[in-house]
Amino acid sequence: MFNWDDIIATPSSWLESAGGDAEVVMSSRARVARNLTEHRFTHNCDNAELAEILDGVRAAAGSTGAFAESRYAPMGEISSLDRQFLAERHLASREFLFNSASRGIVFNEAETLSLMINEEDHLRIQGLAPGFDLESAWRRASELDDGLSAQLEFAFSDRLGYLTACPTNLGTGLRLSVLIHLPGLVHSKEINKLLDSLRKLNHSIRGLYGEGSEVMGNFFQLSNSTTLGTSEDAILSSLNEMVGKVIGFEQRAREMLFRKAQRLLEDKVWRAYGLLQFARSVNTKEALSLISAVRLGVGMGIIKGVSISSLNRLLVYTQPAHLQKFSGTTMDAQARDEARAEFIRDTLAHPSGETD
Amino acid sequence: MFNWDDIIATPSSWLESAGGDAEVVMSSRARVARNLTEHRFTHNCDNAELAEILDGVRAAAGSTGAFAESRYAPMGEISSLDRQFLAERHLASREFLFNSASRGIVFNEAETLSLMINEEDHLRIQGLAPGFDLESAWRRASELDDGLSAQLEFAFSDRLGYLTACPTNLGTGLRLSVLIHLPGLVHSKEINKLLDSLRKLNHSIRGLYGEGSEVMGNFFQLSNSTTLGTSEDAILSSLNEMVGKVIGFEQRAREMLFRKAQRLLEDKVWRAYGLLQFARSVNTKEALSLISAVRLGVGMGIIKGVSISSLNRLLVYTQPAHLQKFSGTTMDAQARDEARAEFIRDTLAHPSGETD
Repeated sequence: MFNWDDIIATPSSWLESAGGDAEVVMSSRARVARNLTEHRFTHNCDNAELAEILDGVRAAAGSTGAFAESRYAPMGEISSLDRQFLAERHLASREFLFNSASRGIVFNEAETLSLMINEEDHLRIQGLAPGFDLESAWRRASELDDGLSAQLEFAFSDRLGYLTACPTNLGTGLRLSVLIHLPGLVHSKEINKLLDSLRKLNHSIRGLYGEGSEVMGNFFQLSNSTTLGTSEDAILSSLNEMVGKVIGFEQRAREMLFRKAQRLLEDKVWRAYGLLQFARSVNTKEALSLISAVRLGVGMGIIKGVSISSLNRLLVYTQPAHLQKFSGTTMDAQARDEARAEFIRDTLAHPSGETD
Repeated sequence: MFNWDDIIATPSSWLESAGGDAEVVMSSRARVARNLTEHRFTHNCDNAELAEILDGVRAAAGSTGAFAESRYAPMGEISSLDRQFLAERHLASREFLFNSASRGIVFNEAETLSLMINEEDHLRIQGLAPGFDLESAWRRASELDDGLSAQLEFAFSDRLGYLTACPTNLGTGLRLSVLIHLPGLVHSKEINKLLDSLRKLNHSIRGLYGEGSEVMGNFFQLSNSTTLGTSEDAILSSLNEMVGKVIGFEQRAREMLFRKAQRLLEDKVWRAYGLLQFARSVNTKEALSLISAVRLGVGMGIIKGVSISSLNRLLVYTQPAHLQKFSGTTMDAQARDEARAEFIRDTLAHPSGETD
């Protein structure tokens, strides 16, 4: 098992840089679903079969070049706090929080590539890149997919493509997505029209915390909704085009906001900054909302001396399990709110080590 | 007429120091009402008679030692903005804003002594001191009263004492008051009980903006309500005792607040500070509320490096007419809110020249 101290001391290196179109797009992600021909889908497996799959896939992963230097988290053997920590890092899915026996995650040190074993599908490969860079995310996932398919036999139908536990993933098994920050479109109230259009155009868009959850901090996850009857390249180029358009809409909404209500906007943005700089207690929801406003201010050049990447890190590191792992203690909600406020103050007071 | 530039460039010197018990009491005031035997009360005077009173009283004032170096504001000849400016300085009463013809104010450079001529009474003498110092306020007013009574004949009845236009001022004609900051008692919800008790004990207490107005920023004006059938010394000693008690209640309420809800209190106080440091637009009501919270924080030692006197100055100088006189232009409400925010930011960013 990897050393938790390492992952805490050297946090996700992909968060060090902000990537392309960073003022709007926080990260790009490619997720590939694969299943083994010789096993039943996970929901039909007993623990013994799951353990067999886990061992086999883990061994195959270890012998790929991408995972030459990898970390492994055995979900069934770690604490629920550690599982939550991995979920906050986007390495574990929410399902892994509750179904953990005979399940595991392999990931590289940079956390740009990970493999969940025995999630809904036997394999869930995930490639990640900062900013708007679906190509890199996809390339990373695809290379691991190639490496693994040389050793494992994936369930594949000539008619349907890759077979998956849920039919919504059939075919390519590929879900590309961006985490996108749309405060301009939310403030201008154009967001609902955009969400409707995107859904009609076979794209899925949802709030930061996944399906059905409240949209917080104006962060959205935009992804392809079709995996079947298409190709990986077609999904990539279609989502690239769509994200490019949404970035354009967002930029225009921000410009309009600036022209129409510059003072109001500056006031809102600086007030958020002032609260983050001085508050002694901040809950998750308020932190998201304030960081979102400051992120808009930085993106629009209103606030200088704060980097987008430092704000991205704040979004990840001020989550409940992160705060508790950093402090080395378990904390109740009140203590976390205080630790969150302190962490934010320290980060904003020491904007050193910025790389964008 | 004095030079407006002088009063703007060298603002109220009494605000330079915070005085005694400054964390609770902002200022102490003594107001003496006098009328001339040879004239009718002002509400029965025509303009000619008012002008005659004005000239006579002004001449007498000029020959007193207290007003050897005095300023004079002829209310009927200055703009409504200038009248409002004098009201914000507590030199003019609200009545003077609307009834200005043949009315005037004489005041010393430090603004610790002033004389309104032809307000409700022919003479309204006002002595002022920073912090809890009713003696100094009363001494100043009393000395001017003595100086004037050597030259003018004041209406006096052996049975009733000094005669005044309104019977509530009969007798001593003396109203002593303190401007007192009671956030502890407001937060602990003990304030209403205290207000009731004070009223039963023949003291008057009201919000910062006078009778019937909403209490803003937890500032109250506490004064004697009886002027008749008592002596100046008795009024002074009774109010001194009462204010001392209220200060004690307030201090205990603050200590209790600190013990019971330290984190909440610190959060509230620092958030207010953060907003004042960074907001781009702040209206009067919010400014009062935020300055009140910061004043509490400074008074309790939570915030260091900000002086009570600088916050007292903010309370005076961020009022609408002050902002406009400082800028040399008339401003609408939005422009004032922006100028107010800028003035507050500058003041907090440059806490130099502090004297307490």
